[in-house]
This record gives sequence, structure tokens and C-alpha cells, in this order.
Amino acid sequence: MPDPSLIQSFPPPVDAPFIIEHVAEEFTSLCPVTGHPDFGIITLRYQPAPTSKSGTCVELKSLKLYYQSFRDEGIFYEAVTNRIRDDLTNAMNPTWLQIVADFKGRGGIRSRIIAEHGPVPSRFQ
Amino acid sequence: MPDPSLIQSFPPPVDAPFIIEHVAEEFTSLCPVTGHPDFGIITLRYQPAPTSKSGTCVELKSLKLYYQSFRDEGIFYEAVTNRIRDDLTNAMNPTWLQIVADFKGRGGIRSRIIAEHGPVPSRFQ
Amino acid sequence: MPDPSLIQSFPPPVDAPFIIEHVAEEFTSLCPVTGHPDFGIITLRYQPAPTSKSGTCVELKSLKLYYQSFRDEGIFYEAVTNRIRDDLTNAMNPTWLQIVADFKGRGGIRSRIIAEHGPVPSRFQ
Amino acid sequence: MPDPSLIQSFPPPVDAPFIIEHVAEEFTSLCPVTGHPDFGIITLRYQPAPTSKSGTCVELKSLKLYYQSFRDEGIFYEAVTNRIRDDLTNAMNPTWLQIVADFKGRGGIRSRIIAEHGPVPSRFQ
Amino acid sequence: MPDPSLIQSFPPPVDAPFIIEHVAEEFTSLCPVTGHPDFGIITLRYQPAPTSKSGTCVELKSLKLYYQSFRDEGIFYEAVTNRIRDDLTNAMNPTWLQIVADFKGRGGIRSRIIAEHGPVPSRFQ
Amino acid sequence: MPDPSLIQSFPPPVDAPFIIEHVAEEFTSLCPVTGHPDFGIITLRYQPAPTSKSGTCVELKSLKLYYQSFRDEGIFYEAVTNRIRDDLTNAMNPTWLQIVADFKGRGGIRSRIIAEHGPVPSRFQ
Amino acid sequence: MPDPSLIQSFPPPVDAPFIIEHVAEEFTSLCPVTGHPDFGIITLRYQPAPTSKSGTCVELKSLKLYYQSFRDEGIFYEAVTNRIRDDLTNAMNPTWLQIVADFKGRGGIRSRIIAEHGPVPSRFQ
Amino acid sequence: MPDPSLIQSFPPPVDAPFIIEHVAEEFTSLCPVTGHPDFGIITLRYQPAPTSKSGTCVELKSLKLYYQSFRDEGIFYEAVTNRIRDDLTNAMNPTWLQIVADFKGRGGIRSRIIAEHGPVPSRFQ
Amino acid sequence: MPDPSLIQSFPPPVDAPFIIEHVAEEFTSLCPVTGHPDFGIITLRYQPAPTSKSGTCVELKSLKLYYQSFRDEGIFYEAVTNRIRDDLTNAMNPTWLQIVADFKGRGGIRSRIIAEHGPVPSRFQ
Amino acid sequence: MPDPSLIQSFPPPVDAPFIIEHVAEEFTSLCPVTGHPDFGIITLRYQPAPTSKSGTCVELKSLKLYYQSFRDEGIFYEAVTNRIRDDLTNAMNPTWLQIVADFKGRGGIRSRIIAEHGPVPSRFQ
Repeated sequence: MPDPSLIQSFPPPVDAPFIIEHVAEEFTSLCPVTGHPDFGIITLRYQPAPTSKSGTCVELKSLKLYYQSFRDEGIFYEAVTNRIRDDLTNAMNPTWLQIVADFKGRGGIRSRIIAEHGPVPSRFQ
Repeated sequence: MPDPSLIQSFPPPVDAPFIIEHVAEEFTSLCPVTGHPDFGIITLRYQPAPTSKSGTCVELKSLKLYYQSFRDEGIFYEAVTNRIRDDLTNAMNPTWLQIVADFKGRGGIRSRIIAEHGPVPSRFQ
Repeated sequence: MPDPSLIQSFPPPVDAPFIIEHVAEEFTSLCPVTGHPDFGIITLRYQPAPTSKSGTCVELKSLKLYYQSFRDEGIFYEAVTNRIRDDLTNAMNPTWLQIVADFKGRGGIRSRIIAEHGPVPSRFQ
Repeated sequence: MPDPSLIQSFPPPVDAPFIIEHVAEEFTSLCPVTGHPDFGIITLRYQPAPTSKSGTCVELKSLKLYYQSFRDEGIFYEAVTNRIRDDLTNAMNPTWLQIVADFKGRGGIRSRIIAEHGPVPSRFQ
Repeated sequence: MPDPSLIQSFPPPVDAPFIIEHVAEEFTSLCPVTGHPDFGIITLRYQPAPTSKSGTCVELKSLKLYYQSFRDEGIFYEAVTNRIRDDLTNAMNPTWLQIVADFKGRGGIRSRIIAEHGPVPSRFQ
Repeated sequence: MPDPSLIQSFPPPVDAPFIIEHVAEEFTSLCPVTGHPDFGIITLRYQPAPTSKSGTCVELKSLKLYYQSFRDEGIFYEAVTNRIRDDLTNAMNPTWLQIVADFKGRGGIRSRIIAEHGPVPSRFQ
Repeated sequence: MPDPSLIQSFPPPVDAPFIIEHVAEEFTSLCPVTGHPDFGIITLRYQPAPTSKSGTCVELKSLKLYYQSFRDEGIFYEAVTNRIRDDLTNAMNPTWLQIVADFKGRGGIRSRIIAEHGPVPSRFQ
Repeated sequence: MPDPSLIQSFPPPVDAPFIIEHVAEEFTSLCPVTGHPDFGIITLRYQPAPTSKSGTCVELKSLKLYYQSFRDEGIFYEAVTNRIRDDLTNAMNPTWLQIVADFKGRGGIRSRIIAEHGPVPSRFQ
Repeated sequence: MPDPSLIQSFPPPVDAPFIIEHVAEEFTSLCPVTGHPDFGIITLRYQPAPTSKSGTCVELKSLKLYYQSFRDEGIFYEAVTNRIRDDLTNAMNPTWLQIVADFKGRGGIRSRIIAEHGPVPSRFQ
Repeated sequence: MPDPSLIQSFPPPVDAPFIIEHVAEEFTSLCPVTGHPDFGIITLRYQPAPTSKSGTCVELKSLKLYYQSFRDEGIFYEAVTNRIRDDLTNAMNPTWLQIVADFKGRGGIRSRIIAEHGPVPSRFQ
């Protein structure tokens, strides 16, 4: 079951704005209709808020464990992507956050879902 | 015969704007002049409207069946692309929708047709 | 319905042994169980027998039409490959002939079937 | 000799703006200085004007024949590209049209020439 | 738990020797030490024995279900590969069978395990 | 018209056996049936005979001019390949010579023709 | 230990604005938690300030030595990237400077960190 | 020694704005410090000024000879790029001109230098 | 310092011959002359001897630690490769073992060293 | 002028047979007819003879300097390859040595020359 309590974070090393991207190539969940496994790549991009604004950076190993908590969950592509967006936004309070989920093909169709939080940082567009 | 009644849809899981892309690599129809088969890749990108504005998301298996309904249809590239744009727009009432159709070469020339509905969402340009 | 009578051929231009390969990237047939379309790439490789031994070369446009005759046929991967091997061997009487059929993925599994007729020519192994 | 009378066209299937791209990978002409053949890829991109504004779409086979009419012509890269831009603009009266010509290397240098007609459509930039 | 009873098979369509390859790109099991998921690609290649020698071909959907039965199994790479080799050999009685398992990296090291049954068919080496 | 008199050659710089490969990516001829241009890549591989056995190496610019002499010739793929094999063998008297001709697709089918002269050199197989 | 005193620089050859990019594919440091080595690619992009504004260009060999000084340092991805941004900005006083650090995967997740100094030059965006 | 007198040019075939790109993959000069050869790819992009404004296009063979004149020159990457920008700008008086120089790695670091003249043409950004 | 005592191993799961390949993409050592770091990819391929002949399989994490023990060692490419071949052969007593070491370029030259122990297994050549 | 006296070598670290490959991607010489520069990639593969048979390994930096000594030499492709084969064979007395020279295109034709000394080692074929 997706478990956001697994997410751990730490203060950003500087207050200046910068961008972090983590690409997890080994995501798997279950199709809620057929029970068959789905496989995808989850890309997280975010700009941490400075410490003075309660911003944090996600700890990498905890991110991996959080993603693994979807392994036995029956959940649609669209819901996975928005769920991760919400859980990570809650945990890190970032200035900007984007989730891009690329799922492998089903029936000859492959899919990408994109969800965001906050304004795209102008200098990194 | 292209059959838009095959398209099924469901309410988006969140009201926040997000983007969905489905790439169908196994599209085929017939050339209306020669009767020879055409082969292409159909990419659908859209931003669902929120439930409060009657927006929906297309169900993946029904999308596959809708595409398969072009298999015996004699239809030009330009018409295929605009037809799919119209049928999916009618079925989902999206905020934004784009169809990119990439057809394999005929006589040494390969083709791409792009049709859209609605304004490109500013945050996902 | 697969129609080997569509296959036309012509005498090889020389008696010396040589190899011919035709790669057809736009093959489609139907799954005999589900009725869903299958898509694949059919590679034909052969060494024509010399004219004195009744050998011929397949005419390219007729090969295309023969492949198109599978479009509405419900037939398994393994049967497609062996059927093509037999039909082309009958039509050309080649010294050596190989069919490699690469089918796109179903359920996350993609498949290749290889069938042959006659000994692999030693100089082209 | 380049022959624009070969270009045939047909009315666009819809009045809504859309984009068409045809990539011809087998273009050849002659170097006007050495007489040696040049080889290139010609990409045509355009937005047809609606029928009410006398816009048309280029017919694919006629486009191929028009390109073939350069086969024995001695002409520089820069002139080829602008000539095609002009001939196709005259034949179709498009809202926007772009020609990108990619020529293979001569003396270790490969070249691309880009010519346009009309404003780049804002939604497809 | 790996369940070979899921494997179904059917008689080969011809008695002539031919080769079948199925590439499953979405295999996952668990590391028996850490419990973390492993991800890999399983390639099965085999030459079915003729019906007269009790040979069969594996049915594709049943192969997928058999592979999915490893999802919650803690098992080493080397054991996975040999287990699959044994289960499929038992189910199909093939003339030749090869399993190539490509596992994604752990600690910067990616791994391939190859196991076989029977002599490599001379004409397909 | 294919003109083997254009081929020039020079003595090999050493008597020891070695291999030469020239890949010409810009070959074009005409289809003898439709008159449409064909495009291909011609790969020549050979082992020159030593000077004492009247062997020579082909001069690169003359090879280019010889290939260009097919530009206006209506000729089938199979005949092109065997014609080049014969003309170059006559001009150079090589120990071994191989022509691989890769023609771009026609009707969704691309083709490769391979012709040889002499035994494949054992040390370079 | 990261040693910015290793960085040497020289005056830019012209005052006109231009862009310099150095891609170092062989960066390694240590994980501060596990002590295991991390491997990455560090891309530096900058626009030197003119000599009149005390701008300099980094000398290539000294840049390599500076990067090597991280070899035995236990330091997080986020800190590496910001540290390099700061050290190089101090040494060169550039108009604009960007560091993109691409780290290889850990636990199936690969990461990119981007840090910048100064406004992105408008003509090179 | 770099010799701009080698550069020859001709009037553009049309007055309408268009873009020309020449990619020279075989550039070499010498390191002024070690004397070792440097190897790079020089990309020239420009928009010729119309004839009425004294604009010209660079002749391709003369461009090649001009680049070859750097073969024995000891010169830094940054200076090469700005020198070429200046010499070609002087010879052609273009509306816009950009030089991108990609040098192969030294000590595990590869470099790109970008220099420009004039405003980037709005329609080709 | 290279430390073969780090290598741990376990009995192969079956007695039947099979092949194991581990590709370590993050190997680094030092040049014994200049002290600069070298970077490479180490590929280990082996056929374990059966348990009855004292054969073992290398444990993956211990292999990683063994490779890391070269991090501060000044050692030539040729010596690295043969050293690893010897240490792993001693630790596992394999039927066949091959080390392929691919080192990144120095001075524009990249290198591969291959060392082996025992006869190449006939069925896996 | 090609200078084999630049080649330095050292005894192989072990007597057991092993293979060494050095790929030099930045080779340049001059065309003896036109004086224009040629560019290529030189791949050296060899099996050193054991010290007891006077075998040596080539030192990498000296190999680079030897290759650089061809920079101002007018020499044909075929002669370059055989010259390097002879010079390195003389300097190292190897059991087996192979030179593969890949030259970039001239007039649309790219070339590969292969020369060898000694029997191909059976275990590394």
C-alpha cells in the first residue's frame, strides 16, 4: 500500500534556488481491473524551498522505499501520478515539483502522465 | 468503419490540471485511392477538464478498440488525423487535446500530421 | 486469406550463387483467439537455384500483395512463419530459404520465429 | 528540369488550422560546377489555408514527381531550397510553409538550408 | 511462488525444425537477502520437438502468467535462470532450449545468466 | 549506362593478404518497370591478389565515377549487384570479392542483395 | 578534499559575449553515509565576463585537477553541485554559470542536480 | 596559419531571409602549450544579408580550405572559435552568424564553445 | 590495495553447465606513472565448475567491494586485467573465466584488454 | 614523416596469452594526390608474445606519438594500414597483430582496410 510515511527529507545545502531530478526506472504497481502488473519509469523534478520557508530535499533511499510501497497496489496510471505528486509535495513543501510517469505499453499503447505543483521556475524552463 | 461509440471514459482522479499522453504504435488504415494499407503511430496528448466542467479521461482499452475500427477504412492521412481529433474531443470535452500522426513512408516520403483542440496549457508548453 | 497464387517470380539474372533479402516492416494479421490485430516484420532470405534447376526470384510487388493477403486472417505466429516458408519455397524452388518473423509485444512479451528450407549456403553463413 | 506543373493539390479536409510534414529522404540533383550528383533530405512543413482562402494540401505522389524533376538539374543547395519554397507556396497558397534541406557531406562538410513563407503558427511553434 | 502448473502448451504446427524466441521485458522477483525487488528481461529460445516426439510449443499468455508467479519470490539470479530452464524444459520437452536472463544493475553491476538444455541446433547456430 | 571502362586500378602496396572495404552511400539507378529512381548503399569488400598474380586495387575516384554511370540505367536490384560484382572482378582480378547492395524500401519492403567471387579468406571470415 | 586553489584561469580572448561548455565524464566522490563511491558527469557552462569586468576563463587542466580533488570526499549529490558552482563562480567571476551534475543510479534511481549563477544570457537561451 | 583570404563568397539567390548551416566534422589544429593536435567539429550557421546590403554566402570549397589553414596553428579552443566568427563575419557581412565548436576530450573533458554575431533571427529561433 | 580476500562465493545452484556475466561500469584505478585516475568497465564472464569439483559462484556485493579495492592503486591496464583474472580464478575455481576491461580514452586512444582462464565452453561460444 | 623509432614497449605482465586493443580515434594524414587531409580511426589488436620469446606490449603514449608522425605524410589508405602493421610488428614481435583502419568518406565513399600478422589466436576468434 502506498506509504508516504516512508518519505524522509533533509534541509537543502544552500538557499539559492536549484533543481533536483531523480529518475526511478524500476517502478511497478498492479492494474486495478485485471490485476496484471504495470511497469513504468517515474521522474521526479523539483526546486526545494529554502530552509527559511520549511523546504526540504527528499532522501534518496527513502524515495526508493516509498516507490516500492506501490508494488502490490491496484491503481490506475492517472491516479499513481497524482498520488505521488501529492505525497512528495506534502513531504517536502517545494517551490516547484513535477512528476512524469512513463508506463510501458499495454495493447500496443504506451502512456505518459505529467502532474505538477507550483510555478515552473523561470530560470530553468 | 471508424466508430466513436467505442470510446469510453472516466472522471479524472483530481481537479488539478495534468497532462496525459498515449502513443499507439500499431495503427493501420487503407489508402482510399490504391486500397493498399497505411501504417502509422498515433500520439494523443490532452489535458482533461475537471469533473465540474464535464471533463473525462479516455479509457485505454476502449481507445485501442476505437483505433482498430479504422483498419478497413479507406481514408487520407489528413482526414484520419482530424477525424480522431474530433471524435476524442467530443468524447472527453478536454481543456486541450493534440493528435500527432506519423505515417510510414510511401514512395520514399514519410509524413506527420498535427491537429489540436483548445489552447496549449501554459505550464506544460 | 493467405493467397500464394499472388506470388510471381522471374529467372535469376546469373547462375552463380547469390543471396537476396527482403525485409517487410508492415505485416499484420489477426490473433485467432482474440481477433485483435498482430503486427510484425517479416524477413525473407534466400539463395535462388539456377535457371537450369527451375529456380526463380520472387517479384517484389507480388511479395507485398501476398503478405497483404494475411491482413484478415486469424493465425498464430508459429503458423504464419511456417506457412510463408512453405508458400515461398513452393513458388521459387530455392537452394536455401529462411523466414524470420518478429512480432511486436503482447502482454509485455515480443516474439521471433525462424523457419528454414534447405542447407545454409556455406559461403554466406 | 524542375517542373512545378507536376504539383497537384486538394482542399484541406477541415477549416481548423493543422500542420502537415512530408519528409522526402531520396532527393538528388547535380552540382552545377562539377556535374557530380548531390543527395539530400527535403522536409516540407506547412499549415494549409482554409478552403475559403484558396488554401490547398499537396498531393503526395505529385510531390514525389515534382522532387524527381530535379534529378538532372545543375543547381546549388541554396537555390534548390528557395526554389522549392517558391514553387510549393505558389501551388498551395499556405498560411505558413517551411523547407529544410539536409545535404550529405562534400569534402567533409554537410549542409542544411532553411527557407520559410509566412508567420510561424503560434500554437505549433 | 513460481508455479510451473501455469504453463500451457500446444502441438507445433509443423514437424520441420524451427526456432521460437520470446523476450519478456517485465520480469521482477525479490532479492532473497534484502527483500528489495530485482528487475530483468527473460529471453526464451527453443526448438520444439516434433509432435511424434511429444514436443510442444509454449502458449504465450500462460508463459506471461508463469513469469508473474515469481513476483513475490525471494530468489537469486542464478537460481531464477536455472529454475525457468527446468520448468519450461519439463513442460515442453524441446529439442533445444536456452534461457538468457538480463538483470538490471545492483551497486553499479548488471548481470546476465545463460542456461541451456540440449544441443544447439546446427542450422541456427 | 554502366561503364566499366571508368574503373581504374593500381598495384597493391604489399604482397601479404589484406582486406579492403569501400562503402558507397549514394548509389542511385532507375526501376526498369516504373522508371522511378531507386536508392541504395553499395559495399565492396575484396582481398587483392598480389602483383605477381596480376592483382590490383581499385582507385577510389574511378569507383565513384563507375557507380555514377548507373544513374540513368533502368535495372533490377539483382542485376545491379551481379553486374557490379562482374565488372569489378574483371577489372581487379581479386582473390576474393563481395558486393552487398542495400536498397531503400519500396512498398514497405527494403532489400539486400549479396554476390561474391572467390573463396572467403580464412583469416578474415 | 575539494581544493578550489587548484583552479587556474586566463583572460577571455575577446570582450564580445560567448559561451563555453566543458563536460567532465569521469567525476567520482564518496557517499558520506556508506562510503561507497559515486560516479557522475559534471557539465560546466558559462559566459565569461569581459576582462574589463575582471572576468576570466577556466584553464582546462586545472579544472580536471580541481574535479579530481573530490575523489576521496564524502559528500551528497546536492552539496557537490552547489560547491562546484560556488568555487568556479568565485574563481572566474562569470556573467552566467551553470553546473549540471548527472549521477549514475543508486538503487535503480539516477539523479541530476542543476545549479546556476547569474542571469541566463538572452541570446543563448 | 589561419588565412581568411581563402574565403570566397557569392550573392544569395534570393532576398528573402533564410538560414544556412555547414557542419565541418574534420577540423584540426594544435594545442599551443603541448603541440599535440586538437580535433573538433565546427558548425557554422548564418542568415545572409540581402545583396542590397552587401550580404554574401560562403562558397563551400573555400570554407573547407579556410578551415584547413588552421592545421598547423597552435591556438586555444576559445580563440579558434572567436577567430572563425570574426573572419567569416568580415567576409560575408551576414545579418546573423553563429559558430559552435565541439572539441573532443582532453583528460576526460570535452568542450563546446559558442560565439555569435548579430541578433538571432526571430523566425528561426 | 587490491584485496582478493574480499571475494566471497557460494555453491552453484545446479551442476549443469551455465554461464554468468557481471558488467561493472564504475571501475577506477590510478595511472602508476602520472597518478591520474583511470576509468573503465570490467566484464566478468565465467562457467562455474560443479560443486563436486569445488566450483563456486562469486557473490555480487563482494565482487563490488573487491573492485573498489583498486581505487587507490597505481596499476597499468594490462596488469589490472590479468590481476583480476587471477584473483577470481583462485577464488572460484571456474571451468572457464574471461575478463574484458574497457578503459576510457587517454590522449584520444581507448583500450580493451581481454584475459581468459580455461577452455571456452563449446556450447556458449 | 612516419617515425617507428617513436614506438616504445615494455614486457607483458604475464606469460599467459591475452589480447590488447587500442582504438585511436584521431588519426590524420594527407592524400598524396590532392594534398587534402584524410581522417580515420586506427584500431590495433594484438596478442603479445611472452617475454621468453622476446614479446613486448606497446606503450600507450608512444603509440600516440607514432600515429601523430603521419600528420604531414602524403600516403594512400592501403599503404598507411600496411605500414602501421609492419612498424608495430617489428617493434613488438607479437604472436598476432591486426590493424583496422576506418577512413571517413571521400566523394560519398567511406573505406576500411584490414591487415594482419600471424595466426588469429584460436581462443579469441
